[in-house]
Amino acid sequence: MPRLPVAILGATGAVGQKFVALLAEHPWFEIVQLSASADRVGRRYGDVVRWRETTPLPPELARIVMTEAVPTGAARLAFSALDAAVAREVEPAFARAGALVVSNASAFRMAADVPLLIPEVNADHLALLDTQRRVRGWSGGIIANPNCSTAILITALAPLHRAFGVRRLTVATLQAASGAGYPGVPSLDLLDNVIPWIGGEEEKLAEETRKLLGTLEETVVRAAPITASVMVHRVPVTDGHMVSASVEFQTAPSVDDALQALRAFRGSERVAGLPTSPLPPIEVEMRDDRPQTRLDRDRGMGMAVTVGRVRPCPVGHLRFTALGHNLVRGAAGAAVQNAELLVAAGYA
Amino acid sequence: MPRLPVAILGATGAVGQKFVALLAEHPWFEIVQLSASADRVGRRYGDVVRWRETTPLPPELARIVMTEAVPTGAARLAFSALDAAVAREVEPAFARAGALVVSNASAFRMAADVPLLIPEVNADHLALLDTQRRVRGWSGGIIANPNCSTAILITALAPLHRAFGVRRLTVATLQAASGAGYPGVPSLDLLDNVIPWIGGEEEKLAEETRKLLGTLEETVVRAAPITASVMVHRVPVTDGHMVSASVEFQTAPSVDDALQALRAFRGSERVAGLPTSPLPPIEVEMRDDRPQTRLDRDRGMGMAVTVGRVRPCPVGHLRFTALGHNLVRGAAGAAVQNAELLVAAGYA
Amino acid sequence: MPRLPVAILGATGAVGQKFVALLAEHPWFEIVQLSASADRVGRRYGDVVRWRETTPLPPELARIVMTEAVPTGAARLAFSALDAAVAREVEPAFARAGALVVSNASAFRMAADVPLLIPEVNADHLALLDTQRRVRGWSGGIIANPNCSTAILITALAPLHRAFGVRRLTVATLQAASGAGYPGVPSLDLLDNVIPWIGGEEEKLAEETRKLLGTLEETVVRAAPITASVMVHRVPVTDGHMVSASVEFQTAPSVDDALQALRAFRGSERVAGLPTSPLPPIEVEMRDDRPQTRLDRDRGMGMAVTVGRVRPCPVGHLRFTALGHNLVRGAAGAAVQNAELLVAAGYA
Amino acid sequence: MPRLPVAILGATGAVGQKFVALLAEHPWFEIVQLSASADRVGRRYGDVVRWRETTPLPPELARIVMTEAVPTGAARLAFSALDAAVAREVEPAFARAGALVVSNASAFRMAADVPLLIPEVNADHLALLDTQRRVRGWSGGIIANPNCSTAILITALAPLHRAFGVRRLTVATLQAASGAGYPGVPSLDLLDNVIPWIGGEEEKLAEETRKLLGTLEETVVRAAPITASVMVHRVPVTDGHMVSASVEFQTAPSVDDALQALRAFRGSERVAGLPTSPLPPIEVEMRDDRPQTRLDRDRGMGMAVTVGRVRPCPVGHLRFTALGHNLVRGAAGAAVQNAELLVAAGYA
Repeated sequence: MPRLPVAILGATGAVGQKFVALLAEHPWFEIVQLSASADRVGRRYGDVVRWRETTPLPPELARIVMTEAVPTGAARLAFSALDAAVAREVEPAFARAGALVVSNASAFRMAADVPLLIPEVNADHLALLDTQRRVRGWSGGIIANPNCSTAILITALAPLHRAFGVRRLTVATLQAASGAGYPGVPSLDLLDNVIPWIGGEEEKLAEETRKLLGTLEETVVRAAPITASVMVHRVPVTDGHMVSASVEFQTAPSVDDALQALRAFRGSERVAGLPTSPLPPIEVEMRDDRPQTRLDRDRGMGMAVTVGRVRPCPVGHLRFTALGHNLVRGAAGAAVQNAELLVAAGYA
Repeated sequence: MPRLPVAILGATGAVGQKFVALLAEHPWFEIVQLSASADRVGRRYGDVVRWRETTPLPPELARIVMTEAVPTGAARLAFSALDAAVAREVEPAFARAGALVVSNASAFRMAADVPLLIPEVNADHLALLDTQRRVRGWSGGIIANPNCSTAILITALAPLHRAFGVRRLTVATLQAASGAGYPGVPSLDLLDNVIPWIGGEEEKLAEETRKLLGTLEETVVRAAPITASVMVHRVPVTDGHMVSASVEFQTAPSVDDALQALRAFRGSERVAGLPTSPLPPIEVEMRDDRPQTRLDRDRGMGMAVTVGRVRPCPVGHLRFTALGHNLVRGAAGAAVQNAELLVAAGYA
Repeated sequence: MPRLPVAILGATGAVGQKFVALLAEHPWFEIVQLSASADRVGRRYGDVVRWRETTPLPPELARIVMTEAVPTGAARLAFSALDAAVAREVEPAFARAGALVVSNASAFRMAADVPLLIPEVNADHLALLDTQRRVRGWSGGIIANPNCSTAILITALAPLHRAFGVRRLTVATLQAASGAGYPGVPSLDLLDNVIPWIGGEEEKLAEETRKLLGTLEETVVRAAPITASVMVHRVPVTDGHMVSASVEFQTAPSVDDALQALRAFRGSERVAGLPTSPLPPIEVEMRDDRPQTRLDRDRGMGMAVTVGRVRPCPVGHLRFTALGHNLVRGAAGAAVQNAELLVAAGYA
Repeated sequence: MPRLPVAILGATGAVGQKFVALLAEHPWFEIVQLSASADRVGRRYGDVVRWRETTPLPPELARIVMTEAVPTGAARLAFSALDAAVAREVEPAFARAGALVVSNASAFRMAADVPLLIPEVNADHLALLDTQRRVRGWSGGIIANPNCSTAILITALAPLHRAFGVRRLTVATLQAASGAGYPGVPSLDLLDNVIPWIGGEEEKLAEETRKLLGTLEETVVRAAPITASVMVHRVPVTDGHMVSASVEFQTAPSVDDALQALRAFRGSERVAGLPTSPLPPIEVEMRDDRPQTRLDRDRGMGMAVTVGRVRPCPVGHLRFTALGHNLVRGAAGAAVQNAELLVAAGYA
């Protein structure tokens, strides 16, 4: 099968580089376009990028001459690592020109006709894409993956929600430096320090949760009636977001019930067969002091979420801690898996 | 006024060294006894201690010959930095021999007749000491300060509890390496890592909260009816514990009400006049990204608690983040302030 | 004595803030002017600065309205925390207008008629200021302190050079994040990482060493004939630069000879009496594992250099490790001490 | 080909776990014995080990029942991750019993008849094994890999020594926490800190350098006449040792000469064909700010050494910085490669 030609929009940043690293040897996709800001257009990717992945940059990708973020027709699918403000302009242009935009940006996540997807959780929401094309008159389209912390939390929460119905949720996050991109957070703000604030993050986590766990009804997603309170923290680690949660359910589960639901969690057969889908999506830890950021972030090639410390909660019903790789399960890996779902579902 | 002769029990550990540093120039107390484990007895403190405070060890203290942790009669008051298991034996021996034991250990914190004190919060609980002496037949006695995270949380929570009545509480902690003492946590467990577990800490925080905010009724403290859910994390910082809380009250306060209560918080006149009492005990931060661990832990000489990010909570009524120095407000400084209260109240 | 009115040029950066913190309660100087980049001019310092010092910003300084970096006549002395490129224009303008510029910038450090000073080391070089005024026709003038690593190395090396004559020098530095200012180094470049490169630093260290240890001959400084090889590294610490050196001397000293020279090192009587001069300037450590960055950087209020691990060297004669606070002894503190020397010597 | 049955001595520590991880899927070796300290003997490895590798522990290895460190006959080859003191007793016992001991311990590294090997550098030294067997009357034998920093330095230095003859060497190391094993260095000693001391390390690096670069003459290795001065530092990184060197040669090379020698460096054909040998063994970096610890330590699966910043040296002839993974190229990986060499050379 010839590989599908794809573009990476915003290819020099932290998420952009992760896209390049993940797609370098992808069985279904072939990078044919890399976009960057105006001052870098016309230069070779390898000469421009300050490559920070630990795998080497393949020479054939280093040679690609960078373009502006405009549809050239070369790519049938575009991965977007753009900032939200830029994405708001660029992504519709690609969709209008017939490309499928698989976006990591927040620009359209909460738009009613844009599927916000975690394949194991709500692959059925992909049906919104048909509405989107009809309403907007696009031959392409936009699909989005959630914010990094949300992706990790909701992967862990989905099987519990299905089985017991989440009602209220109090979440504390401990997020890595790479979640802010590069250059991102100054080292003087993170060495020997914690910052209890990330602009807009608490609101995103709450509202994306309701959409992701919502129910597809005909052409709309009805938000899940979940009240969520989020307290974010940036901590001095390189990669890996941890989320600790206290959850109140409609039906109170025992710890054993919860563990069983977490362990049994699988995507649909279609989803489980995608090249980037981890098996299992959730790894359950029984050791008291796990998950730990550095030790567990790379499980399932960075796509698995590790859940541990499942225990009763005096305020809600259960507490647990989940951990995942913010640049993989929480960003570029999530988008690649979404793109694979588009292919498997016949959209691309 | 001649200074009161005091002992430090467990003088070589992290909290023990902090005691020595804080008492080196104290106007009311004079160190006359330093105890250590058996293999160090008979040697000079300066030759034995692996001094890690950044202020120099005063030569006259370096010359003190270490003793076992037994009452010699030299000290009228003993600061205990002992492990809980050792404290359970040693502290009653001192109390029986007529010394006042001001303990940082957890051994007797929850005993019904032992005052668990934060002077600005519940100085009246000191009256338990009379009961304790009567019941146990001691001429001395034991008083305790809370666990490090509890001290920081409750300093912040007390004015809100007084004004609005705390009902339910969900707390996430982000605790420093020094909270585990020295050698404590291996560097391989904390560099680029977070550990969501500290043995026994979640239970301590919940039960000490109820005692500290409880009501003195004749000779007993009636626990405050607060349901608390705690999720602890050890993060890679040297000093300074952060706690983020979601709180439900009996009477819902506005953010402005809460800020006013926090800003107005003071200890009694007696407490405010103690040498170690910070003024004010709570520093309120309005900057979005504060408190931060490294920047705010030394406020008020390490005795002030900085509270920021006071904002509404979708699940409870309010969220906030508090930060304090775990070895000062959370341990040695708290004990010194407690000892000062004993003196000011005429017990010593 | 009325305090001398002073300006701080570049007052919002890391070194600028350190100037404000050090001068806030200075007995000889009073801040009357604070300059910043054009977009901040006309606004109050407290509203503009992202204050990151751990001591609070005094309200009377917070109220100062910021100016451009131009001489207004209000300040008789100006502390410069400007970038080299800006300093090249601004500092001569102040000197021409009659102000004494005490600069932390590298712009004029190596100019033949600009004194490059560490008061304990080469206070006599201050005489270059007379030449400078005569040659340039300035009523004010410029004096400079060395680069941060150089200041720490040369404080340690000066007594050894005086006694035994340094011939060859191989130096490795381990430098803190704050040496690069704020925002400076991205956290993704320093968490769990070392960078063996700082642009221009190795050259500065070598050439400033020769000037600082050079000999004043009439109106010029003859550079010391020292061959220096420097290997710099940025390491993940907040503050504190460490330098390890292998030294070959003209006269081979024993370790004891060297320790004695280090311990006996003092500035002149005039220098030792300056408010900012630490006593002693060098603290000698005999413990195997010291100096350590976090434990020793604040000695002598950040102005003392700690020297340890003095031992024979198979390639040169001696090896040692020196440590100091890069923002105090290595930048703002050094400039304040230089300004005090100007006053004591009758220039201001 | 049936896989050779091997033992891992000291299997629960940091290096021991790395052995297990590296050998889990090794094409030539099969783990049949795991030894640990007395209190763990008789229990299953998976129940005893505090597994800290990021790859999962294979279930079939988790089931192995641990033995004392005594030869049972089951293993024909034993990897030793023992402490030096224990190794001094145990390793000869295995060698006497006919096993080949491939040791990471320092116990016998400098023994005249023990090959100290880096396969790309001095595979010919393996011939010492014949002498060893003859002299000691062993049917097995002991071979050793160097200390972690030495392995990284000498891999980089070997091609330069071959081409230009190293005469004098001044080296600064910046070593990771994992070099001290687990629990190793307390986090309070490494967070926001540097320690300029590691017991015995400076001496090891100097003397092992002379042996590794020495010349095999009949049955002895004549040490290379290299004067080496080493200054070690422990820095707050998890894995990866950096060494920066100033080198004086017999024949002064240009930077280009040196780069060419580094790039052309290969092991013998036999060595290059070993499963664990990286290709190339040295990766040359031309970017100013590389190598960096976190970004480059995993090159060549942790077996490649990255060399950068090759530049002239005012004191010697050249300066450079080399970086490698201390637990792979510097410990377990080195031993596995040595064992492979034994097999390829017909000893096992």
